[in-house]
Parts: sequence; structure tokens; C-alpha cells
Amino acid sequence: MRGAVLYAPGDVRVDDRDDPKIIEPTDAIIRLPATCVCGSDLWPYRGLDAAQEPSPMGHEYAGVVQEVGGEVRTIKPGQFVVGSFFASDNTCELCQAGYQSSCIHREGVGGAQAESLRVPLADGTLVATPDLPPDDLVPSLLAASDVLGTGWFGAVAANVQPGKTVAVVGDGAVGLLAVLAARQLGAERIIAMSRHQPRQQLAREFGATDIVTERGDDGVARIKELTSGLGAHSVIEAVGTQESMLQAIRSTRPGGHVGYVGVAHGVELPGEELFFSHVHLHGGPAPVRRFLPELIDLIWSRRIDPGRVFDLELPLEQAGAGYEAMDQRRAVKVLLRP
Amino acid sequence: MRGAVLYAPGDVRVDDRDDPKIIEPTDAIIRLPATCVCGSDLWPYRGLDAAQEPSPMGHEYAGVVQEVGGEVRTIKPGQFVVGSFFASDNTCELCQAGYQSSCIHREGVGGAQAESLRVPLADGTLVATPDLPPDDLVPSLLAASDVLGTGWFGAVAANVQPGKTVAVVGDGAVGLLAVLAARQLGAERIIAMSRHQPRQQLAREFGATDIVTERGDDGVARIKELTSGLGAHSVIEAVGTQESMLQAIRSTRPGGHVGYVGVAHGVELPGEELFFSHVHLHGGPAPVRRFLPELIDLIWSRRIDPGRVFDLELPLEQAGAGYEAMDQRRAVKVLLRP
Repeated sequence: MRGAVLYAPGDVRVDDRDDPKIIEPTDAIIRLPATCVCGSDLWPYRGLDAAQEPSPMGHEYAGVVQEVGGEVRTIKPGQFVVGSFFASDNTCELCQAGYQSSCIHREGVGGAQAESLRVPLADGTLVATPDLPPDDLVPSLLAASDVLGTGWFGAVAANVQPGKTVAVVGDGAVGLLAVLAARQLGAERIIAMSRHQPRQQLAREFGATDIVTERGDDGVARIKELTSGLGAHSVIEAVGTQESMLQAIRSTRPGGHVGYVGVAHGVELPGEELFFSHVHLHGGPAPVRRFLPELIDLIWSRRIDPGRVFDLELPLEQAGAGYEAMDQRRAVKVLLRP
Repeated sequence: MRGAVLYAPGDVRVDDRDDPKIIEPTDAIIRLPATCVCGSDLWPYRGLDAAQEPSPMGHEYAGVVQEVGGEVRTIKPGQFVVGSFFASDNTCELCQAGYQSSCIHREGVGGAQAESLRVPLADGTLVATPDLPPDDLVPSLLAASDVLGTGWFGAVAANVQPGKTVAVVGDGAVGLLAVLAARQLGAERIIAMSRHQPRQQLAREFGATDIVTERGDDGVARIKELTSGLGAHSVIEAVGTQESMLQAIRSTRPGGHVGYVGVAHGVELPGEELFFSHVHLHGGPAPVRRFLPELIDLIWSRRIDPGRVFDLELPLEQAGAGYEAMDQRRAVKVLLRP
């Protein structure tokens, strides 16, 4: 099959790769009608977290089950399923507490920018849709696999509540879908922080009531101005840098909540400031599995349309051009068609 | 009046100080039947956070109202009252959300190691007991002013729940009273981390079910052993150093909660580790006012006896000896009698 491989920073190629096979009896193989590039793929693409050898890329997936191992009980060939970047048994104590991305048997899923994919722990990891989806729902179901699930977790981690004020730091796909999540969770005022007109527009469509274009200390000051000097009740951090984390913490009122889902890179939090800030801090790799049944239901019934974050569609063969477009912020998120 | 003053690291003297007077019409003056030394007083005593000039010491207080300003409505002369280290209006949006120690009008209260004290924002800050307390309840009511309220907030911030496992890092008065709070909040298993026999004993009396003497990585490993390899549901951090914060975070299971109430000194939290730890983090200066009515009720009805943390009683004139005893860990907490 064909699949995207990162050879070196800035060098993504689509190669012939071995077809995935059942290795463990709990595996499933799924065929992918579409795949995509994640903001977190840009870290190694830019030379951070870079592997020493060519690495198959992609960890977002939704598709049709082709084959299952002998111990798979609930997932059947022919079903359309959605999974996420950590496979999980969904039965251990941590899964049952809703932290499937810290499952004691968790296993990373990789190489999803390809025609098909092996998914470990299929029964625990995959959630089937009610039926085969119409083509136009596929992008939204693919978004549920990571960026929607991650934005949603950010909103839950930030304790978004009906009637409250939420700010979102980061206008990538996760940040934009955190806006959508905050709207679904009943926030009254949703402040998107973005200086890019097309992303501001999408944020408004997803439910943002205010746009703040300032960043850093100026962005914090603007959020305070909009919130009687107190800060937002909930702030979702969807970038992962030192500046964005401090911006999020400083934009939150005492007693408020920061939900952080940007994969942290080079972040050191000053303990004294955090102590006196009185904020709640929670986040990490989103336990997307916890939210998948609800997210699939919302998509299936067309109450949300998270697939709108895909603003560029390319053949899988042009994966490299897709990375480039996201790296240069010409695209929010790139859909690849095998 | 007489009162303790820090002149330089290690140099606490009891001097003649001006009697406190009503300055603002919202003030009250209270006479202190007892006062005490706090673990956090040891930071400046040891030369950290040291002021440039002689500083009146002490921020824990309970006593009899002598006089109130013209705008004080609910607090009356003759009442016995308990307050805390930040005066608060108890009406602003942050107070109403339970964060009185971040009140928009908050004001530090200092100089409580003395015969009497001026308390700002008396109506918002002070909580009266049902009647004048018998002498033997005074130490417990004084403990409610800070160390009990702070330990209690640590337990609430760590989301202590009935039936769950809690670990407490730190065996000072706050850590020991966090054990008491965890017991009151219904924790099933309470692991106190202490290597000091008398403190272990008091922890057990307050409700600890297990004692861990190891520290740092060894302490974390021991907590994991006691919790099926997962870590505690809730960990209360009551020290404030880099080592204790990392010990607390690493002792908590994914999805669990760290409540940190040790005043942070030189702490830098590694963002990547925090991200992948999946813990909730909350803490800061305890909003003791939130808990005072409940704590006073528990003490008044003799269901808790937090005053047991006072294991050395001295005349106020010997405040310096009290600091020395706590600094050398010969005493958990020192009560001073004016």
C-alpha cells in the first residue's frame, strides 16, 4: 500500500509500505477512505521530536473494518469505525475513570496517513457508527478521532459550564474545535484568540462571540478588559508553548480552570505564579475514547459539523504539499485521499 | 502592647509595639488569648522572603472583639471570632465563588503574634463562634485560622472523595491536618509521608492508615506499590519545594488530583511531564474563610481536635525560642500565650 513517511525535517514522501497485518489476536485492520495531517505532526516535521529513521506518519483515523483477530468480540468486518491515537483496553481502572489515553495497556497508533491501518486492542479502541456513513460525514468522523476529541477534552478539562465565559488560546484545528465544544457545553461567551481572518471566521461559525487578536501580555490584558478585570472562568490552551501556557494561566480568573491540550514543548511553569494564580490546571493527551460515542452521535445527527476544519483536500500522494501548507499556515487542516 | 518582630534571619524579638487602632471604618480590633507560629513564618526566619526592615510577625488569629469601626454591621464587641491571613469582603464575585483569599479587596493581615490585632474588612473576614469558647477549645479555633483551613483546602483541592486513596506529602501542621481533613471527607485509605515518629503518631491519631517513610523517587515507588502500581487518587502537597511538588505529582494516578498548599519556593514544573501525567493540579493560598463556618462547627461540637498539633506552649515573650524549636523540627507547632 501507499503511505506517508517522514525522512527528515521538512521531507515527507509517500512510499510503498507493507500492507498491515493482524499481529495480535486483539487487532483489527481498517481501510481508510480519508486521512489527515495533525498540528502535532508539524513538531517532527519542523525538526522537534524527530525520529532517527524514516517514520510512517499519521495517527487520526476512521474507516471500514477489513479483518479482525481471533479475540476481537464486538468489532466486525464491514463496520465503519472511529478510533484514536492511543489504543486502550477500555476496561482497566484508568479507562473506567475516563483516562483511556493513560490505559495501563495503552499502545500508540501510527502510520495512519496511508491506505489502511492496524489498530491494536480493537474492541476497546474502536467505536462503530450506526451504519456506513454517507461520504459527506467522513471528514467530521475523521475529525472526531483527534482534533475534535482533543478540543472537547480541552473544554471538559477547563470545566466549561453553561452561562460562563471561555477563552481559547490557539486557532489551529484543535483550538477552533474547542470553540465548538465550548458552545455545545453551553458557554455563554466564547473568546477566540486569533489574528488570522479565515480562522476568525470559522471560530465565529463554531460559536465564538468575541475575537481577540492580541497575544501574550496584551492578549491577557484584553481578556481581562472583557471580563470585568477578573479573567475568564475557563481557558483552553491548544498550542503547547511557554508563551501560550502563560497566556492561558494569566487569562484565567482565580478559582477558574485551564484545560491544556497543546502538546507541551519546552514548557516550564513558574511555581510561585501558579500558586498565587489560584487556577485549576488539567490536560494532557486527550482520552478521545471517552467522548467518541457522544461525538459520533452529534455528527451522525448533523448537530455539529467539525469536518469544516478541513480547508484543503489533496490526494494522499501529495502529503508533502499538505504538510507544507499547514506548516506555512496556508491551511488549517489538510484532508488526504488515498 | 507586646508583639514578636523579625529583625533579621534567625532574630525574632518581642518588643513594645503600638496598640492597634481602628483605621478604616470596616476594621475590628481583637484581643488574642493565644497566638502561634506558622511553618510559613520559617521562610523569612530562614532568610527567604526576608523583609528589609523589622517586621511584626504572625498571621493566625482567633480572639475577642474589643472594638469595631463605624461601618461594621455583623461583628460585635464581645464576640469570639476566627479570621484568616487574607482579609476579604466576602461579597465580590471571587469571594462568592469560594476564593476569598483572591478577593478583589483582599488585604494581608499581619502582626498577629501579639496581644491584640487590627483586622480589616471585619464583616467579611471574621466568623463568630456560637458563644465564648471554653479555654480548651481555643487552640483548635486558632488552628482553624490557618493550618486546619489550609490542610482542609488541600484536601478539597485534591478532590478527596469517600472510599478513595489519599497521600499527604509533608508532616508539618498543615500536612497532619490535611490527614484529618481527608478522614472527615471520607477517604478510605490515607497515606502519610513522614519519617518522624511523633508526627507519624499524630498522623495516625488524625486518621492515617499507612505511613511511608521514604522520600523522593523512593517515596513515589512506595506509594505506587500501595496502589496497584497506579498512584493515589488524591495527593496533598504541604511543603512547597521542587522535590515535594514532583513527589506529589508523581504519586498521583492519571486522572487523579494534586492539591498543593505549601507556599511554593523555587518551584519550576516541567511542562512535558505534567502534560503526560494527566493529573489535575489546584492549590494556592487557602480560602480559609470558605471553610470557617464548617470548621468552627466541627470544633465546637468536638468532632475534631485540630489543636493537638500544638505540641509546645510558651509565653509570647519567648517567641524566639518557639521559632527555634520549629526551625529545628523539635516542635510541630508552637502556641504562644500573650
